[in-house]
Amino acid sequence: MAYQQYMHWAIELAKRGFGSVEPNPLVGCVIVNPEGEVVGEGWHKHFGKEHAEINALQDCRLKGLSPSGCSVYVTLEPCSHYGKTPPCAAALIEAEVAEVIAAMEDPSEKVAGRGFNMLRKAGIKVEAGVCREQAELLNPAFIKQSRHSRPWVILKWAQSIDGYMSETSPEGQDLWLTSEASRENVHRLRRSCDYILAGIGTVLADDPLLTARPSHGRSPHRIILDSKLRITADMRLSQSIDAAPLTIFTLSEDQEKIQTLTDCGVNVVQAQRDENGRCSIRGVLDKLAAKNAQRVMVEAGPELLTEFIRCGLADELWIYTAPKMLCSAGKDSLPKAMAGLPGSGLYHSQFTPFGEDIRLTALTRPVSEI
Amino acid sequence: MAYQQYMHWAIELAKRGFGSVEPNPLVGCVIVNPEGEVVGEGWHKHFGKEHAEINALQDCRLKGLSPSGCSVYVTLEPCSHYGKTPPCAAALIEAEVAEVIAAMEDPSEKVAGRGFNMLRKAGIKVEAGVCREQAELLNPAFIKQSRHSRPWVILKWAQSIDGYMSETSPEGQDLWLTSEASRENVHRLRRSCDYILAGIGTVLADDPLLTARPSHGRSPHRIILDSKLRITADMRLSQSIDAAPLTIFTLSEDQEKIQTLTDCGVNVVQAQRDENGRCSIRGVLDKLAAKNAQRVMVEAGPELLTEFIRCGLADELWIYTAPKMLCSAGKDSLPKAMAGLPGSGLYHSQFTPFGEDIRLTALTRPVSEI
Repeated sequence: MAYQQYMHWAIELAKRGFGSVEPNPLVGCVIVNPEGEVVGEGWHKHFGKEHAEINALQDCRLKGLSPSGCSVYVTLEPCSHYGKTPPCAAALIEAEVAEVIAAMEDPSEKVAGRGFNMLRKAGIKVEAGVCREQAELLNPAFIKQSRHSRPWVILKWAQSIDGYMSETSPEGQDLWLTSEASRENVHRLRRSCDYILAGIGTVLADDPLLTARPSHGRSPHRIILDSKLRITADMRLSQSIDAAPLTIFTLSEDQEKIQTLTDCGVNVVQAQRDENGRCSIRGVLDKLAAKNAQRVMVEAGPELLTEFIRCGLADELWIYTAPKMLCSAGKDSLPKAMAGLPGSGLYHSQFTPFGEDIRLTALTRPVSEI
Repeated sequence: MAYQQYMHWAIELAKRGFGSVEPNPLVGCVIVNPEGEVVGEGWHKHFGKEHAEINALQDCRLKGLSPSGCSVYVTLEPCSHYGKTPPCAAALIEAEVAEVIAAMEDPSEKVAGRGFNMLRKAGIKVEAGVCREQAELLNPAFIKQSRHSRPWVILKWAQSIDGYMSETSPEGQDLWLTSEASRENVHRLRRSCDYILAGIGTVLADDPLLTARPSHGRSPHRIILDSKLRITADMRLSQSIDAAPLTIFTLSEDQEKIQTLTDCGVNVVQAQRDENGRCSIRGVLDKLAAKNAQRVMVEAGPELLTEFIRCGLADELWIYTAPKMLCSAGKDSLPKAMAGLPGSGLYHSQFTPFGEDIRLTALTRPVSEI
């Protein structure tokens, strides 16, 4: 294997942690002996558990091999601090590895070069920046939070090939647009986020749970923008507080209704008013930033999605397209809602199949400009 | 390999002929000895050249092996007639194969079971219908022409993720929407067709050639619907008659202009008038059917594309989607043009990546209902 291919493999390993390790970054690690053979592989698997380097060292030792004198390819600078686990840099020093090739520095305040320094001081050769862009693409939200203390906003929607977000049966019933495989993938995306945000329109139309299912112990906090406080205590959202927290941002001061919801365990918060008399999405994101939110997923109708794009607040798009041409059976045309907006460049775009559907993921700016 | 896997492999081989064998059908063939080993592979490679069975027999013999006593998996009934090549059924009989497993009968009048009969009379076991649907999907146009003597109409277009067919630069220039890989694929699709049809709007906007490039000796006949005869003799279409024939359907009776175009070698034909005072697309297709047209590709703007869908005249869609969100930089919104139509079911849909883009192919009805 060539030099960069070890790092590509470490990046692939890192991806396996998606939906399980957040708000930690996805990290992968490959240990290569002087003969160029891979002797250990690891990735960060679960939030609060061993980091990628530790798992790779363990993999090596379980095979009866020694990491001493080896090269370590890791997608992120090894940590230097005692968090939920001891520092990886110390473990690598103890293992007497010869060199550490990292794809990128850890931008978080707790590390920020200290891991590299620890290694260098111990006489280990350090190289940084191999496959940097691909490694940064593993963790754009982590980078944004580290650098700007702002949450990363992911807009997710499903559409037909002609841009409708929902399908109405001849009897007027709403139908599933996408395949089961796509919907499963949405639940994985939910598990990767700390907040899921929706508008009251979606709530009234679908009475959704907005939980990650199965949760695998990960329950993103649900946020509803509901300026007139139209949600009721008998809706599935209000009735599922045990599954995941629920916060309603509202402009309403109907104390009685607020009390009823509060009694159910719903958190009702006064929002800022935007220039159109609705809950200000900037204001909501400010409040989430103050709570160290890292990944906020928006599952909404055309109006609210468009508002995020108009305000330049969307960082990433996940668009599932079903092979359907709905025409007059279509509801909620996104092209129509977006027609007036300035076009948005899409970067690092990728199409991935899910059952009959295709998913487009893309960032709204280059990862190097986060 | 299991029973059906041989046929799957024959189907994959058949696909290699796409863009080279039409109006002949795509056919693939795999020869398997009694031990279950593949001893010969072949596919129909070029129009007028050897059929798949002959190529597979030759492959077997070139390897120094004998097809005698073998099983022959072929995606279409072997032919029984002397056309540009001698009958394949006779070659299989001469080769003393033990059995022929065909995915489907040849629906064309010239064969229609006669190939199977020849084989059976010679004592060869014949089985038909293995993987029939996949095999039919190789050649829907061939099936339609055989059964109904009508051309198969393929609508091709490119769109942004929000449904625009073209992009305007800030300076007002039209930009390429799709990647080079997509455009190459369009040229292959053109090579597979005998006619390419466009509207005068596309011609005036883009001054296109509408030829297959590189042509590999295949030059689909170009058809323009131009009710008012706005095309001129100096346009690239009129100036490229040597590369491919050009027919203009018009309602105009401007004899002088017709003469000028005719002098360039352009074929000008009077069209039927439809209820909106334009060239009737039904009338055009009738004339193409009379000329035994098999595959007609439509490369047009939203209005003409929509007209084909509205009239139920579209058999197949090829939609290239570029990872772009154009919004106000978009031109020619297809969702807008199609909004009033009844939705169309899409069948046998498949997404395939081309460079940064994704291509959706689908039929507008199940292949079993052609």
